[in-house]
Amino acid sequence: MSSTFGTLFRVTTFGESHCKGVGAVVDGCPPQLKLSEADIQPQLDRRRPGQSRLTTDRNEADQVTILSGVENGRTLGTPVALLVANKDQIPKDYSGMQFIPRPSHAEYTYQMKYGIRASSGGGRSSARETIGRVAAGAIAEKYLQETFGTQIVAWVDSVGDLEAAGVDQDKITRAAVDQNVVRCPDEKIAGKMADLIARLKEEGDSIGGTVSCVCRHVPVGLGEPVFEKLEAKLAQAMLSLPATKGFEIGSGFAGARMRGSRHNDPFEKREGRLRTRTNYAGGTLGGISSGEAIYFRLAFKPPATIMLPQATADFDGQAVVLEAKGRHDPCVVPRAVAIVEAMAALVVADMALRQQARGAL
Amino acid sequence: MSSTFGTLFRVTTFGESHCKGVGAVVDGCPPQLKLSEADIQPQLDRRRPGQSRLTTDRNEADQVTILSGVENGRTLGTPVALLVANKDQIPKDYSGMQFIPRPSHAEYTYQMKYGIRASSGGGRSSARETIGRVAAGAIAEKYLQETFGTQIVAWVDSVGDLEAAGVDQDKITRAAVDQNVVRCPDEKIAGKMADLIARLKEEGDSIGGTVSCVCRHVPVGLGEPVFEKLEAKLAQAMLSLPATKGFEIGSGFAGARMRGSRHNDPFEKREGRLRTRTNYAGGTLGGISSGEAIYFRLAFKPPATIMLPQATADFDGQAVVLEAKGRHDPCVVPRAVAIVEAMAALVVADMALRQQARGAL
Amino acid sequence: MSSTFGTLFRVTTFGESHCKGVGAVVDGCPPQLKLSEADIQPQLDRRRPGQSRLTTDRNEADQVTILSGVENGRTLGTPVALLVANKDQIPKDYSGMQFIPRPSHAEYTYQMKYGIRASSGGGRSSARETIGRVAAGAIAEKYLQETFGTQIVAWVDSVGDLEAAGVDQDKITRAAVDQNVVRCPDEKIAGKMADLIARLKEEGDSIGGTVSCVCRHVPVGLGEPVFEKLEAKLAQAMLSLPATKGFEIGSGFAGARMRGSRHNDPFEKREGRLRTRTNYAGGTLGGISSGEAIYFRLAFKPPATIMLPQATADFDGQAVVLEAKGRHDPCVVPRAVAIVEAMAALVVADMALRQQARGAL
Amino acid sequence: MSSTFGTLFRVTTFGESHCKGVGAVVDGCPPQLKLSEADIQPQLDRRRPGQSRLTTDRNEADQVTILSGVENGRTLGTPVALLVANKDQIPKDYSGMQFIPRPSHAEYTYQMKYGIRASSGGGRSSARETIGRVAAGAIAEKYLQETFGTQIVAWVDSVGDLEAAGVDQDKITRAAVDQNVVRCPDEKIAGKMADLIARLKEEGDSIGGTVSCVCRHVPVGLGEPVFEKLEAKLAQAMLSLPATKGFEIGSGFAGARMRGSRHNDPFEKREGRLRTRTNYAGGTLGGISSGEAIYFRLAFKPPATIMLPQATADFDGQAVVLEAKGRHDPCVVPRAVAIVEAMAALVVADMALRQQARGAL
Repeated sequence: MSSTFGTLFRVTTFGESHCKGVGAVVDGCPPQLKLSEADIQPQLDRRRPGQSRLTTDRNEADQVTILSGVENGRTLGTPVALLVANKDQIPKDYSGMQFIPRPSHAEYTYQMKYGIRASSGGGRSSARETIGRVAAGAIAEKYLQETFGTQIVAWVDSVGDLEAAGVDQDKITRAAVDQNVVRCPDEKIAGKMADLIARLKEEGDSIGGTVSCVCRHVPVGLGEPVFEKLEAKLAQAMLSLPATKGFEIGSGFAGARMRGSRHNDPFEKREGRLRTRTNYAGGTLGGISSGEAIYFRLAFKPPATIMLPQATADFDGQAVVLEAKGRHDPCVVPRAVAIVEAMAALVVADMALRQQARGAL
Repeated sequence: MSSTFGTLFRVTTFGESHCKGVGAVVDGCPPQLKLSEADIQPQLDRRRPGQSRLTTDRNEADQVTILSGVENGRTLGTPVALLVANKDQIPKDYSGMQFIPRPSHAEYTYQMKYGIRASSGGGRSSARETIGRVAAGAIAEKYLQETFGTQIVAWVDSVGDLEAAGVDQDKITRAAVDQNVVRCPDEKIAGKMADLIARLKEEGDSIGGTVSCVCRHVPVGLGEPVFEKLEAKLAQAMLSLPATKGFEIGSGFAGARMRGSRHNDPFEKREGRLRTRTNYAGGTLGGISSGEAIYFRLAFKPPATIMLPQATADFDGQAVVLEAKGRHDPCVVPRAVAIVEAMAALVVADMALRQQARGAL
Repeated sequence: MSSTFGTLFRVTTFGESHCKGVGAVVDGCPPQLKLSEADIQPQLDRRRPGQSRLTTDRNEADQVTILSGVENGRTLGTPVALLVANKDQIPKDYSGMQFIPRPSHAEYTYQMKYGIRASSGGGRSSARETIGRVAAGAIAEKYLQETFGTQIVAWVDSVGDLEAAGVDQDKITRAAVDQNVVRCPDEKIAGKMADLIARLKEEGDSIGGTVSCVCRHVPVGLGEPVFEKLEAKLAQAMLSLPATKGFEIGSGFAGARMRGSRHNDPFEKREGRLRTRTNYAGGTLGGISSGEAIYFRLAFKPPATIMLPQATADFDGQAVVLEAKGRHDPCVVPRAVAIVEAMAALVVADMALRQQARGAL
Repeated sequence: MSSTFGTLFRVTTFGESHCKGVGAVVDGCPPQLKLSEADIQPQLDRRRPGQSRLTTDRNEADQVTILSGVENGRTLGTPVALLVANKDQIPKDYSGMQFIPRPSHAEYTYQMKYGIRASSGGGRSSARETIGRVAAGAIAEKYLQETFGTQIVAWVDSVGDLEAAGVDQDKITRAAVDQNVVRCPDEKIAGKMADLIARLKEEGDSIGGTVSCVCRHVPVGLGEPVFEKLEAKLAQAMLSLPATKGFEIGSGFAGARMRGSRHNDPFEKREGRLRTRTNYAGGTLGGISSGEAIYFRLAFKPPATIMLPQATADFDGQAVVLEAKGRHDPCVVPRAVAIVEAMAALVVADMALRQQARGAL
């Protein structure tokens, strides 16, 4: 396990689906930041299950409590511990039961790695693990927002083959994203996405999608080459999220088809400082933020839990047909939006502190 | 700067384009490994410039010397320091010169971050920085190969719009990759790629491309959720390479279009152990290696150095036309293959040691 | 703040004196370890205040709850989060009050470092911070005990000028240490120590002391030269405890007076393996455990909180006489014993996992 | 192995006694610092062997070369690699020879830990390993000196039972320390120390000693509680040095005998800021620098290599008499002074950068 992330702004998460609670410890949070649960709860609400007909029917309130690090509404500079109680706290005792590892789930590899696994609900590989990230990310975001005016906005870019169009990364707001349950700011396609997800839910199937994210008003100079370039840490942060299969920044995979004469972003003076005319780079040069908007995109696979029968094998290799019952989330991207924003905030906040260590910023 | 990578198998690189030398210190290399310069040189030769008509005309021998950590042909368990001398060791004194930051180069952000920059050739953001990675990666690879029989093979998947077809990731070998100068195992398309690159070199332009990589015979159980999942560390490793814009594992961005009923990889017993029938996952489940081939793909942008005139601005914001002279590498992917393999080896070796710490493997 | 300790067996602590609770997250705890609150509580009871007439009159139960990482009585390999609620959870609002930094307390430096400080009770520099360490250490100790039969025993070696004699570090047990409230196994001197502490409590003064600790049955080969030699990490661990002023291993400062011909520990075969006849080294050679008992000693200063009037200055530099009221702990060493054992266990457990990563042990 | 130290100002050392060279990579060195080999060489000269009749007769020039990270006399912010060639580069092939582990040497534990060991001269446990530390420390010291006016001075406090008196830690200078070959500023006792060491050298025996160190003009606020308190990192740094057995800060072990009413350091306004009247604390409160002089003391054991016959056992347990030949260093403290200063500088520089990350300093 490696449940700690960051060098100076450092988060440690804990908890699995059926223990007493999940949460995080944020160490290195700058002192004197105004902070209360009300600063954290909104993003938790955006990621919680049961918030719309498109997500799982599980309904969990996910109320956060700040255990430490804050006094009289201000951070002390000491670790901020955050706790969200689990509703379902009773693990099953699965000993003696036939073990049929769910296809494309983490149960198999957890059992092989640790020789033991959580009884149900995904354990540590459950989406509940991301609660700690979202809570911690909300703090990082508040710090960035108050210090640099940083804005971080993620949205659903595609569901299956349905792709959003016309999203302006320089102007998109969280309010605009939240105008529909899919969290896709292209209203026309959002309706079709919602229909598709609802249909797949009924069918017992699931679907993948992509999420885009932009970070605006990030100071120039963030990122620590060579191994912790800004995009490298963003890539790690994003690929550490459940169900992610890909990350691209700026021109991304499309950039691999382009010529340099087209892809290069020439400089010009704008708004009193050096800017680039285009932003194929996606906001970094040589792994360091350039002052342009940081723009990246993430691929999420279709959730592995489906209600359709699957021909697979049990742990001993015997062929079986697995028929899942219960509830499932047919598409993760609407809820993933808040999680992606949280991880982006954690990366940028850590890099901001590290650059500040040079006496810069 | 963050020039150290890995937790137990840990590499620290140093050097820029015009200093005395570049290299790496490998700390945590397992003891008693047979090792000499001859184990490292082949991969350095595969990445060096001037190896074919498609790369830059600069020609550097890049001979590696092991400074420490090896006695009588065996590693001692102590840090292995590796040094490659630079041919061009004399930095220019650019003080007083007009500073025109090259579009899409790191000069601008280095100057903004550090208040100073290397005189020429890219400094620490130069491709020469990857020499230390390749040398260190060769050691990691040797360890993996001797301990687990691990095979790591990368190849050029596309150049511009030209895409390889029919590459069998279960069988592809490094020898097959090296049959042509492009390092694309699809011989038919490789010829076209070579022509395209040669033509762009003549035109003074550049082109992007993609590299795929497979890691076979990786033990089950590697990867440290939640923040150091195997794919998360691979993503960080790859996006820390110069010119990379995207990373995808398994089904990647294509997987975001798929349904769960199709994307799930069912289990079956094969070769005496549990395997999956398909491998859309790309060799990991929940961030932990599953025993299937680890398969990922990387996007590289077109090199920023081009010989065509570019309308841009100098550091003070004055509009200028930049006309570069000299030599350039029109496409990085043929040389990137060895670098990608090196970073993959560094990630997997570190994870193998960490899993071994549990008494497993 | 740096509230995380260890590389593979890694503890992150949180909490200050007047927040909702204190605790720790143990990441990297080996899976399949039998664990419940009952394994942790005894050491918390040994460090809690109010356990005897010699300690502070504050009486806190300090009951630990395992929030995560354990199912059906076994660790899952996932983070084990531990929480102890604070009795006094209401911070004072000190804004506007005159700030008289208590002499030799951390209030002054916390205020200078963070520009803010906890309202009362010491905040993060309070002894309550060590609760998370003790809880985490109990888990580390259980792992070591079950895996290697490791025994860790600390005891009070001196209080003021009163020094224990005749303690046999090869045989001393925790039961013997707990036979008196001072936790000094030399019964004769223990009575005098208790009297001295009681008298100082009455006088409103305080007194320093030393604690010795032995770790037996530690496997050969633990410790990671050069910067994480076993004694270096022990020294860091111990000097990170409140009120510590010194650390020595083996012969320690007395060894600095000796000649090599006397100080060297010659080898001999004993109990079927290579042992040393003497153990001036204190159980390590070159920073690596030798298989002999690891033996070290710690100096604790007299507690800074005293009831006597002190001529000092307020934060603005005005001369004042500070007269503390309330309760104080006249001597920390009786309670420190459990804390020292915990930190020793955390160091040794981490080093054991790291050595295991080499396939050894 | 753990050959990297520091979080932001980070040094990685390499090399053993008989490889091609020893050195260090300094990552995170602030940019724009004036730096050349001439800034580093003086401290290397103070630690090198053969500098006086009291040290080993081995005579090595230990000339340092800066390989990277500096251009036109200024640091670039990129890794500064430092190399010192070894004079004796040819390891012996000891296979087949009887292995008699030298008493109190690291050979035995290295062999047990790694299953292999360097052929001669101590390998990685040799004092040559400290060359990289000293070179790196000289850079850290230059940064601190230029930024904060920090002064770091270490001296020999005792050799055997001979103790220095009257050293004023507020005024002592490096020049005063270097006035005699022992590096003890108490001239009267220094002569006796030199005689004692010379006599023991002749006898083939060795002797221990202590080194004191003071760091003046360290800004208030350095140190990262709870695990990286300033004194905790100093303790780790110092106990990671070969032959060290103890560390104490401020009142140290003597403080354990004192009452709080005497030991507390009251505040007063002096030189326009809050100071303490006494400094029993040794310059830190709660693990954070207070602005007072940081003062600590270190115990070094007598060197294990002696020329007298020793009754010990070979690796197989057979009793043997070991008679060493050649050269030895009868007392390490005169040369240790520069090494202690280097490690202190590395700790303080890292903490200064970390505090600066808060926007402070």
